Amino acid sequence: MDYMLISTDDHIIEPPDVWNGRLEAKYQARAPKLVEIDGEERWVFEDQKLINTGLSSMAGKKYEDYNPKAARISDMRPGCYDPKERLKDMDMDGIEAQVLFPSTPGMAGQTFAEATDKELALRCLQTYNDWLADTWCAANPKRLIGQTIVPLWDMKLAVAEFHRGLKLGHKALSMPNDPVGMGLPRLADAYWEPLWNAVEEADVPVSMHIASGSQKNSLPLTPGEGSPATVFITVGPTANFTVIADLIFSGLLHRHPKLKFVSAESGIGWIGYLLQRADEVYHKHRHWAKPPITEKPSFYFHRQIFANFLDDAVGVTARYHIGIDNLMFEVDYPHSDTTFPNSRQIATERFKDVPADEAHKIFRDNAIRLFKLDLQ
Amino acid sequence: MDYMLISTDDHIIEPPDVWNGRLEAKYQARAPKLVEIDGEERWVFEDQKLINTGLSSMAGKKYEDYNPKAARISDMRPGCYDPKERLKDMDMDGIEAQVLFPSTPGMAGQTFAEATDKELALRCLQTYNDWLADTWCAANPKRLIGQTIVPLWDMKLAVAEFHRGLKLGHKALSMPNDPVGMGLPRLADAYWEPLWNAVEEADVPVSMHIASGSQKNSLPLTPGEGSPATVFITVGPTANFTVIADLIFSGLLHRHPKLKFVSAESGIGWIGYLLQRADEVYHKHRHWAKPPITEKPSFYFHRQIFANFLDDAVGVTARYHIGIDNLMFEVDYPHSDTTFPNSRQIATERFKDVPADEAHKIFRDNAIRLFKLDLQ
Repeated sequence: MDYMLISTDDHIIEPPDVWNGRLEAKYQARAPKLVEIDGEERWVFEDQKLINTGLSSMAGKKYEDYNPKAARISDMRPGCYDPKERLKDMDMDGIEAQVLFPSTPGMAGQTFAEATDKELALRCLQTYNDWLADTWCAANPKRLIGQTIVPLWDMKLAVAEFHRGLKLGHKALSMPNDPVGMGLPRLADAYWEPLWNAVEEADVPVSMHIASGSQKNSLPLTPGEGSPATVFITVGPTANFTVIADLIFSGLLHRHPKLKFVSAESGIGWIGYLLQRADEVYHKHRHWAKPPITEKPSFYFHRQIFANFLDDAVGVTARYHIGIDNLMFEVDYPHSDTTFPNSRQIATERFKDVPADEAHKIFRDNAIRLFKLDLQ
Repeated sequence: MDYMLISTDDHIIEPPDVWNGRLEAKYQARAPKLVEIDGEERWVFEDQKLINTGLSSMAGKKYEDYNPKAARISDMRPGCYDPKERLKDMDMDGIEAQVLFPSTPGMAGQTFAEATDKELALRCLQTYNDWLADTWCAANPKRLIGQTIVPLWDMKLAVAEFHRGLKLGHKALSMPNDPVGMGLPRLADAYWEPLWNAVEEADVPVSMHIASGSQKNSLPLTPGEGSPATVFITVGPTANFTVIADLIFSGLLHRHPKLKFVSAESGIGWIGYLLQRADEVYHKHRHWAKPPITEKPSFYFHRQIFANFLDDAVGVTARYHIGIDNLMFEVDYPHSDTTFPNSRQIATERFKDVPADEAHKIFRDNAIRLFKLDLQ
């Protein structure tokens, strides 16, 4: 491959100063804080001890050193929290652009949606969107791609913040894949309709990252007997199976033909089966079940849903069952799944039997078109 | 194809007389009964109104006539409930043998496990295993293959009934894929250990059919807005994703190297992804997560897990990622998914690019070997 790759799922590990000096005096002391608890460096907000497992900052570590305990900033590779260092790591890995998700706010702002003081939460959320633009994306706006997070608890505020995010230069909206687990309606519910109308009009994609539900439940990362941690990590990506089936069969994509979703870090090796099964169910069961759609499910997927993957030989084998125009690459820097610093090598090996034009779409063109990146 | 196919997942719709005249007088009046309720013909047992959706008896119906309401025996194709008629339908469809699941008892005896009077429940369950042998399998023991159901609430009784089932000629054990939903421990829990020891010694397979959990929750088969029914039917097969990951990572298959499970009606198009993901998780996370296994997860799958499918082009494409020796065909007669009466035509079309020796394994040899069928 004689071109740089584009990654559509990466993460910022926030440094301690995100909210420093940016909030009104009455809120400043209550902003999210990185503190020492029980020998670990942990983010806290209100009464929430936030999820900051070390598995989220493993870029550059050997697998033998992977550790689920909360990692210290001082132990992390600087590319985790510093945009200039991130760009250097991207250069080393052959990655031209990354689409970025927050960590402390939750990947879709869930930390603030689960807060008690919603005025405080709104200001902290807005501050994050500002910081993302002027501290991270500003380091190179063509290569570091921001996504807006919105106040999930109020659709009027959410629409306003979404519009503010567009003015800040953010190129997508990050939404929880499982709002139900947070006590909010599912993505296909009428509750979200004002936001979907705004997003459809703006024509920007909506990322649904796996595990972007409630921040209040700890991950079952206990080692040892029965090994629930390995089962949890193995199963995690397929959480979007039900989400995608619901976006389609509910009629949401039918009602909003320009709305586009990205299934982030879900892998793709199971999506061919999902589309085959959904089409079969539509074919056999639509007469009595009467789903509010007029085309077969795979039609809506091909028009409106995109999915990204890291290292997925099964998905590459089954790519024609998914759709060459719907697939995008990701590096997942700096999470434990990341392909960094071997992304190009892995991509080349897995794609050795794939025609060059298909590879180019998956590694560059589809992402440039969908996120409207300022790249050739 | 110049040979008959073997189906490893089919269902008996019980006629009203299963328990007639077979129970002690004190139990006879309280056996499961087919009665008229609210204009529907429904099975009832104790206070349970059992699941008998019409979608379970759709063989031979047009999709336009599919209906989730409880079907009447008089409206069903006789092959649903009559073994001689079933054999005729198998001849018509080119099927040599079928592996049979119960309906009224639940596919794995859940109806009896959820009963209040466990003495009554045990006798009804034993009676079912007897009836299955002397009424159904007796019609042609080489072609109609019975599976034992056991009292899930007592492992001493369960082992005894499993041994009794072997003497009756049944060739497998049918277990719930989701005992947790019934308030019982997961399949990898030590609770089941006496049963796994007995099964391993007898060297017969354990079927885990999708949706073989609690009988007390009604299916969300309401048509119309939001279409939860279509989402439910689409997602259903992948329930075994977590189950298989847990059988492997828990160490159950490691501890019991001769124990063999069949993932029934789960489809196969997602299994390549599961194995790839599980192996990756083992590779990256075993150092801290310490799963009690010594080989990579796909090793245990290839040694001990089998999966069947009806019409799964994606799974056929990805078959080398799953394992040619682990795949088996199924017809799912007479459920709504069934390929009857077009099983051979569908199988031929989907396998047109598959080498003959691979097809022969998948359509015959693997099932004959696993279930020890008395067929060539």
